[in-house]
Amino acid sequence: MAGNVQKLRIVQKFGGTSVGNIERIRAVAQKVKMEVDRGHQVAVVVSAMSGATNQLVGWVNEISKLYDEREYDTVVASGEQVTCGLTALALQEIGIKSRSWLGWQLPVYTDGVHGKARIEGIETGDLEKRMAAGEVPVLAGFQGLGKENRITTLGRGGSDISAVALAAALNADRCDIYTDVDGVYTTDPRIVAKARKLDKITYEEMLEMASLGAKVLHTRSVELAMKQRVRLQVLSSFNDQPGTLVVDEEEIVEKELVSGIAYSRDEAKVTLVRVPDRPGVAASIFGSLAEASINVDMIVQNVSEDGKATDLTFTVTRSDLPRALKVLEGKAGELGYASLKPDANVVKISVVGVGMRSHAGVAQLMFQTLAEKGINIQVISTSEIKVSVLIAEEYTELALRALHTAYNLDAA
Amino acid sequence: MAGNVQKLRIVQKFGGTSVGNIERIRAVAQKVKMEVDRGHQVAVVVSAMSGATNQLVGWVNEISKLYDEREYDTVVASGEQVTCGLTALALQEIGIKSRSWLGWQLPVYTDGVHGKARIEGIETGDLEKRMAAGEVPVLAGFQGLGKENRITTLGRGGSDISAVALAAALNADRCDIYTDVDGVYTTDPRIVAKARKLDKITYEEMLEMASLGAKVLHTRSVELAMKQRVRLQVLSSFNDQPGTLVVDEEEIVEKELVSGIAYSRDEAKVTLVRVPDRPGVAASIFGSLAEASINVDMIVQNVSEDGKATDLTFTVTRSDLPRALKVLEGKAGELGYASLKPDANVVKISVVGVGMRSHAGVAQLMFQTLAEKGINIQVISTSEIKVSVLIAEEYTELALRALHTAYNLDAA
Repeated sequence: MAGNVQKLRIVQKFGGTSVGNIERIRAVAQKVKMEVDRGHQVAVVVSAMSGATNQLVGWVNEISKLYDEREYDTVVASGEQVTCGLTALALQEIGIKSRSWLGWQLPVYTDGVHGKARIEGIETGDLEKRMAAGEVPVLAGFQGLGKENRITTLGRGGSDISAVALAAALNADRCDIYTDVDGVYTTDPRIVAKARKLDKITYEEMLEMASLGAKVLHTRSVELAMKQRVRLQVLSSFNDQPGTLVVDEEEIVEKELVSGIAYSRDEAKVTLVRVPDRPGVAASIFGSLAEASINVDMIVQNVSEDGKATDLTFTVTRSDLPRALKVLEGKAGELGYASLKPDANVVKISVVGVGMRSHAGVAQLMFQTLAEKGINIQVISTSEIKVSVLIAEEYTELALRALHTAYNLDAA
Repeated sequence: MAGNVQKLRIVQKFGGTSVGNIERIRAVAQKVKMEVDRGHQVAVVVSAMSGATNQLVGWVNEISKLYDEREYDTVVASGEQVTCGLTALALQEIGIKSRSWLGWQLPVYTDGVHGKARIEGIETGDLEKRMAAGEVPVLAGFQGLGKENRITTLGRGGSDISAVALAAALNADRCDIYTDVDGVYTTDPRIVAKARKLDKITYEEMLEMASLGAKVLHTRSVELAMKQRVRLQVLSSFNDQPGTLVVDEEEIVEKELVSGIAYSRDEAKVTLVRVPDRPGVAASIFGSLAEASINVDMIVQNVSEDGKATDLTFTVTRSDLPRALKVLEGKAGELGYASLKPDANVVKISVVGVGMRSHAGVAQLMFQTLAEKGINIQVISTSEIKVSVLIAEEYTELALRALHTAYNLDAA
């Protein structure tokens, strides 16, 4: 052990591909050993083997379309049960004291909403004692204990949430999320060759990146980390490089104007042509969509030219488009629009950065760059730390590359 | 529901092949529905899908040869967790109220000996209330709760044991063990075409049949059923025929002299030639084998001709033969035998029946029948309800068919 290294308490979380087979579980054990050998206290959280959860969910769906979510949770939680036992064994095999913990054993208390439970608390007293004595607990991610002594699962991204919640409960110095990418990039490196891995990113930026399509971390786990002030690190389980730290804004001394450029193809645009320009029409339109549980993202309403009618454009996710059209067609008489124009060939491009809070001109640079490439902007929306535009999908790659260069994000 | 049928409380247990895929789990639900529709109260116990347990055990062994049995249990118990959830869903899908129960949820208390735990008690209060209200509980077989809130498993035949223990705790009228054979036969029907399915057999006979190679029920579950006076039925999940009832001797009015003929190929014979005929030699031989955890079954010692030395023959399971030889060779000097003759080409044939308690001549008929076929008997052992002989393996089929006819067991 290195003598003068600070002793930390670390939660390491390994996803499905990281524990996808026995060889990889052995590699996970080595990753854990590295931190233990540095003198750190380590707790591990594991997902199910990649593919296992899909198989279990498939079986449930095959038996029952409208399944009892309590039984769904019982079946699906078995995937993490397998990997946490195997990981504890792999650690023991290389000389590290370890035991597995299932959600009901700690327990991880949840609100009992099956299939998408929220963690209400984690009992860590026994865990902390054992960690202090050199034992490495391996917690089954994604699962907790609900009402009537039943297993609950946390929904998508559940194991990340387990890891963040455990890190918060243990007051850990860091929560390392091991995955199959080596960090958060300025944009998608499969599209922009000059994309750079970020050393640090703020929670707020990560949230925008996550929800806008950079599928490294799920929104819920980043929100929880932000709320509980858990320092996250996203890193690869397939190499030994440091990843990207997701931290509080104060930890980032030199803030970039723009940290990254995200995109989402999961968008569809709907235009209602010549909607009567009278009070209550917008409420009626979006009220009907909300009733059908359809989330509307961007909205733009043109200025009425004749005071009688106007065009209204909004976006929904692509999978919601058919239902959105059906809802609006059903209300055609009431709403009185001239026609309904759907368009699924769109992409949302977002420029994200906490730096833009204090700098003007970020949006302007985006519009100018896209204009120079002859790309027409269909809808615009902005928030405190991002500017998003909707453009034709065919321009995705061109727009990303041009913006990446324009904001000085290109790797040297 | 039939009006004048007696309302029973039944435990139905389905093995691995019976729940081997989703289609079969649906068929299991139909089997349960049949009993529910008759007005019976039903509790279900399920094994893991066939193959699932082997895969899980394989993973554990791949990671660690000398594994921590607590982690083994955590991993392996997940197989039954999957099927009990799926079976509850399949029951709900056809309109039967149902919920799954894991070992720790009831709980099924065990002694905490991991990998081969014994059930100490089952909490059934909640279960009985729910059953009275028409709900069908589905219990994950093979598992229980041990010390420190950890999962234990019951070892081979574990789900049968779970079913019998649950039937005893619920004071059930019958415990139906569904399997891939349709009952207990007078002998192996793959060898003797005229073998008959037995309607009833006593616990004692079933124990002899089970331990002698008729692999329908595991010895431990039959022992438990006998001790707790649980009426067992062995029947097929692939047809709707009644199976074989395993019951108390008093329930069988017309006792057959011989109920069945069992055989075991898992035998090996060892002969120590010219062992010095002095006190303590046998103790030394069998003591050494016991120390090496090698079970000795049949033993025969020839009369010493010269008062100086004698031949000693005994049998062990075939898999123990190499170790047995090694132990004895290591003690060659101390034991002073002339030579060591192993023979793995033997089979043990046993004639079993409670009727022989009150009838002489059963053994005589066996020896005479084998002699008429020219089959040499190498070793004989007897108990109150069975006669076993060791013969050369090549005579297995001939001996079984001849004895089956001789004891009047042939189907008409």
